[in-house]
Amino acid sequence: MHETRHNLRVDGSRLWAMIQETARFGGTPEGGVDRLTLSATDGQVRDWFRDACEAAGLEIHVDELGTQFALRRGRDMSLAPVACGSHLDTQPTGGRFDGILGTLAGLEVMRTLNDAGIETEAPLMVVNWTNEEGSRFAPATMASAAYAGLYTAEDIRSRRDAAGISVGEALDAIGYRGGEPTGARPIGAFVELHIEQGPILDAEGETIGVVDRCQGVAWYDGTITGFESHAGTTPMPRRRDAQCGLAEIALAAEAIALAHAPSAVATMGEAVIAAPSRNVVPGRIAFTLDIRDPDQGTLDAIDAALRERIAEIGTRRNLAITLDKIWSRAPVVFDASVVSAVESATRGLGLSHRRMVSGAQHDACNLADTVPTAMIFVPCKDGISHNPAESATLADCTAGADVLLQTLVALANAPQAGSTSSVSGIAAKTQSASDPSS
Amino acid sequence: MHETRHNLRVDGSRLWAMIQETARFGGTPEGGVDRLTLSATDGQVRDWFRDACEAAGLEIHVDELGTQFALRRGRDMSLAPVACGSHLDTQPTGGRFDGILGTLAGLEVMRTLNDAGIETEAPLMVVNWTNEEGSRFAPATMASAAYAGLYTAEDIRSRRDAAGISVGEALDAIGYRGGEPTGARPIGAFVELHIEQGPILDAEGETIGVVDRCQGVAWYDGTITGFESHAGTTPMPRRRDAQCGLAEIALAAEAIALAHAPSAVATMGEAVIAAPSRNVVPGRIAFTLDIRDPDQGTLDAIDAALRERIAEIGTRRNLAITLDKIWSRAPVVFDASVVSAVESATRGLGLSHRRMVSGAQHDACNLADTVPTAMIFVPCKDGISHNPAESATLADCTAGADVLLQTLVALANAPQAGSTSSVSGIAAKTQSASDPSS
Repeated sequence: MHETRHNLRVDGSRLWAMIQETARFGGTPEGGVDRLTLSATDGQVRDWFRDACEAAGLEIHVDELGTQFALRRGRDMSLAPVACGSHLDTQPTGGRFDGILGTLAGLEVMRTLNDAGIETEAPLMVVNWTNEEGSRFAPATMASAAYAGLYTAEDIRSRRDAAGISVGEALDAIGYRGGEPTGARPIGAFVELHIEQGPILDAEGETIGVVDRCQGVAWYDGTITGFESHAGTTPMPRRRDAQCGLAEIALAAEAIALAHAPSAVATMGEAVIAAPSRNVVPGRIAFTLDIRDPDQGTLDAIDAALRERIAEIGTRRNLAITLDKIWSRAPVVFDASVVSAVESATRGLGLSHRRMVSGAQHDACNLADTVPTAMIFVPCKDGISHNPAESATLADCTAGADVLLQTLVALANAPQAGSTSSVSGIAAKTQSASDPSS
Repeated sequence: MHETRHNLRVDGSRLWAMIQETARFGGTPEGGVDRLTLSATDGQVRDWFRDACEAAGLEIHVDELGTQFALRRGRDMSLAPVACGSHLDTQPTGGRFDGILGTLAGLEVMRTLNDAGIETEAPLMVVNWTNEEGSRFAPATMASAAYAGLYTAEDIRSRRDAAGISVGEALDAIGYRGGEPTGARPIGAFVELHIEQGPILDAEGETIGVVDRCQGVAWYDGTITGFESHAGTTPMPRRRDAQCGLAEIALAAEAIALAHAPSAVATMGEAVIAAPSRNVVPGRIAFTLDIRDPDQGTLDAIDAALRERIAEIGTRRNLAITLDKIWSRAPVVFDASVVSAVESATRGLGLSHRRMVSGAQHDACNLADTVPTAMIFVPCKDGISHNPAESATLADCTAGADVLLQTLVALANAPQAGSTSSVSGIAAKTQSASDPSS
């Protein structure tokens, strides 16, 4: 029976067909997907997912934030389910793979197990987390964060989009305000398959990223106030040029990140001159900084170095500069046992692979606070994501789903699989029921 | 009689009252003026100016681009008029002095001469040039440029504003398409009084700037194309970050200007990230550069240095960078005799003064191509202009108008005053009529 499982493979073409089929919900002329969370098209893909899961014999449960849990019964229903999944919402200029691959691959794993007649010891579960993207409602990954206890469900339901519609109203509008309290449904372990959304696997020609951590993030809002003056009549020494101050900050952030190579990254993604004019020295600029590193000590060191440099730039240039950390997320180290299970499954399948840090935030990064968690990455072309051009191959998607299949089965059949009371180890079983698979 | 003239002073309070009275045409709650060229409020101030000039006994002529010429007859009407003036249009966030001072001070000079019963040898003229500001129609200083032959009137009339209305249509709408061909009315010499629009006189505590030249300008449009990528997943060495490239260009432009201190200035007034997002590495940016210097050789050297630096930045960062010079104006050296007349008048009045370069473009800079020209600057508080906070004192405005009065009288009574055929010298008289004032 173990041999059967090790030889088991998903049906890649069936998975691929699901990815293409669901892309019609919010599909764009450019070939991408525009499916904002809790929109009408999100409601359509949720209905499709529910029906497909039920057709595969899974029980669908919906929590009060709309997250869908598709349960496949195990031999021992006292064990907490070993779960996978991701999200089905997209950016307004989203692609066909971000989140979608991990969710539909979970369903494909269940179908594969059904076809092979395989029952696992612990139950399995596929999760479609509400609002991973954060494009319509802030924060991103809100439902998994609430599941992990970072927010209350009431707080999240009160968040409003740009049109003033609350999450609660949007849930009601598509009929996805479930009855189950968020966080109440136990998860024994969680594995999220996702496209890398970065260039490393594609550039290095590797198939699987065994993701053992998720870097921390700090988001900053900054302002620079100098003095608007005439571009022709203001001598250089009399200027208080906000744009030149901004330039120094951008390059300082870059240099500080490089001083913490290779892990740290720094990005000035937004910079807006107030009332810009080609013949006016910019007087006011608002900007953002996004700083990431897998190590909290490095993030703190970067924060301190940035503030020191900004103070010096402000003093020297007679600019008033503010820098507010508006949000941060500490680095997450994924569970060693779940990471090891992913790595073993990958080796068993003979796939090229490497350990990786998740550069992006994912639902798994929230889950890791309370559930043994890891992630599986597959390459996406040129690292492009959040773009209609987002692209992954059938072969890589299939390989990722195979790793997911093998990992889930191994975890669900492990001697100690399935208890929610364990955080440090993997799902240590709390009751002494015999384990027929061992 | 010469003694009388040297003791003659304008009525500063009458000038000040005109400045305040006309500020109601387009006056804003902040105390500034919003009077775009050829708008309804521009029509109102033109009507007011016409009526006030006619009440002062001046003949009003309007050319085909709407420029108003208010003629005060001289003893010898075969001489080309010695002219002054500026503009009555404003920026949308304009103040009460930019252009207005020089136009209304011209009228005040005529009133003062009328009150004193003084006739000049050559006729005098006050000009209100259409569209100095360029806020509604491009280019700025269009009417004086057409007068000087830099554009045809037909070309200028076809220029359209953002709403699609042409200059010709806008002229018709307020009844200011005059019958006189642009450039046909002779001007023997031109003196423009203006607030400095820069900080030098105010900072140095001097009353009069004797402006002997106008610096040249080059306007550039640039683009930077890198690659948009995820702020969390893209390692620093794999980035093609347009914002960091922009930062280097801003600082390079500043450094190159400083290398040509103290005259050169460089400004990056606009920089817009395409589709900005705090967690996306900027991939495309459009920017502008404004470079000025009084010496064409320096402007050329700056252009070459900029292009060399930009090429290096683009190569090193793998960015495609374009830099197009979209407009330029060569430096102008004002007429030595007219400058000398301004300086003599200033000295005669015992006013503190310094030679200056005009950092801004003015109608006088266009006129200088074909008419002996100079300018008079007075301080404005903190150098602020194009802003409702634009401020100049009654004493400084009066001093500037006194210098204008003395300069115009001296030029109009000079033995050789008044011919349009002279460009190199001042208005050499072409006929042998006796000069009763000499």
